[in-house]
Amino acid sequence: MAGVEIAILLFDGITALDAVGPYEVLAMVPGAQVRFVATERGAKRTARQAALALVADHTLSEIPRPDVILVPGGPGEAEARRNPEVLSWLRQAHETSRWTTSVCTGALTLAAAGFLDGVDATTHWSSMDDLAALGANPVTERVVVRGKVITAAGVSAGIDMALRLAQLEAGDDVAMAIQLILEYDPQPPFDAGSPAKAPAHVMEMVMDRSRRRSG
Amino acid sequence: MAGVEIAILLFDGITALDAVGPYEVLAMVPGAQVRFVATERGAKRTARQAALALVADHTLSEIPRPDVILVPGGPGEAEARRNPEVLSWLRQAHETSRWTTSVCTGALTLAAAGFLDGVDATTHWSSMDDLAALGANPVTERVVVRGKVITAAGVSAGIDMALRLAQLEAGDDVAMAIQLILEYDPQPPFDAGSPAKAPAHVMEMVMDRSRRRSG
Repeated sequence: MAGVEIAILLFDGITALDAVGPYEVLAMVPGAQVRFVATERGAKRTARQAALALVADHTLSEIPRPDVILVPGGPGEAEARRNPEVLSWLRQAHETSRWTTSVCTGALTLAAAGFLDGVDATTHWSSMDDLAALGANPVTERVVVRGKVITAAGVSAGIDMALRLAQLEAGDDVAMAIQLILEYDPQPPFDAGSPAKAPAHVMEMVMDRSRRRSG
Repeated sequence: MAGVEIAILLFDGITALDAVGPYEVLAMVPGAQVRFVATERGAKRTARQAALALVADHTLSEIPRPDVILVPGGPGEAEARRNPEVLSWLRQAHETSRWTTSVCTGALTLAAAGFLDGVDATTHWSSMDDLAALGANPVTERVVVRGKVITAAGVSAGIDMALRLAQLEAGDDVAMAIQLILEYDPQPPFDAGSPAKAPAHVMEMVMDRSRRRSG
């Protein structure tokens, strides 16, 4: 992956972990160079309580042909998806990219750019209908690789996606070494991380919260 | 956890995921308010390629008595640990905190502040000797809860630690709901996330890389 440029898109209302999980993984791929990009340079407020900002060092036009495109999600994705500058950059960059990737609702941006028409893809479990409405074929898998397009499920799935990408680009040993350095040996106190695994009453709690927010 | 203030320490050379993983979890605990704090307000460069900056909105003196203290790790931790302003803030805040926590080498800062003398604690697997040298009793567990002090293993362990803390503060259902929203259903391509699980030749690769960096 020598000399490989990785562009991670930032925007206001981003879910920080969507971007930061893959960054930690991909920045350790030998020869890879991570660039955080946005329509304008500077601090982008994150979604959760707006308690944090992530700084984009580069404008989109400064990084026109990254080897890897990564589009994170978050509440601000809906606006990013409608930004002509973002879509134009994505369409141009996708022509020459080696990998075009998304985490969580970032897949909706890829779909809006026209990359997922009839293509298997995944997103956050709560956004599968939106993904279908934008023309993709939603698949309930943690990481979906189709040609050069890789989509990941919600938020934390970006870490798994990036490890898969590290494996594809640099091989098993490098990917395992990165996993070891990040001590990614998950031991959550519960096994409730997907709709299929969470108890029904917890699923109902989350859906109810989501309905109240949309209402 | 109504009205609970959570202070996450930032500094140059931080490992971004150490801070951002727990932030995503803790900001969803009902009533909790996350504050990113540093000796000075503004952007702090992250460790990996210095490709990102995280913005601290608050100085330490603005948040003197947080209910939860969280100290992340990273290459910059060694300097943070020697900063009298950081140690003084920690010692004062620890007197009234409900929980004092660390991720990765952030445990070394807690030890330097004097919170871990003879206390069971954990850190990144490669820093266990340093933790012992600072007076703690290193334990090879992903999350170690001892009284009000909670330490997590390397980098990604912060997510598990924060879920445990959410569980302790807000109960099982809330912690599971947060896990579901973050779709934290880990499926890494390998099971190589700890020295006990990684193949010997991968462990050797990582140790060799670490020796070259220190040399």
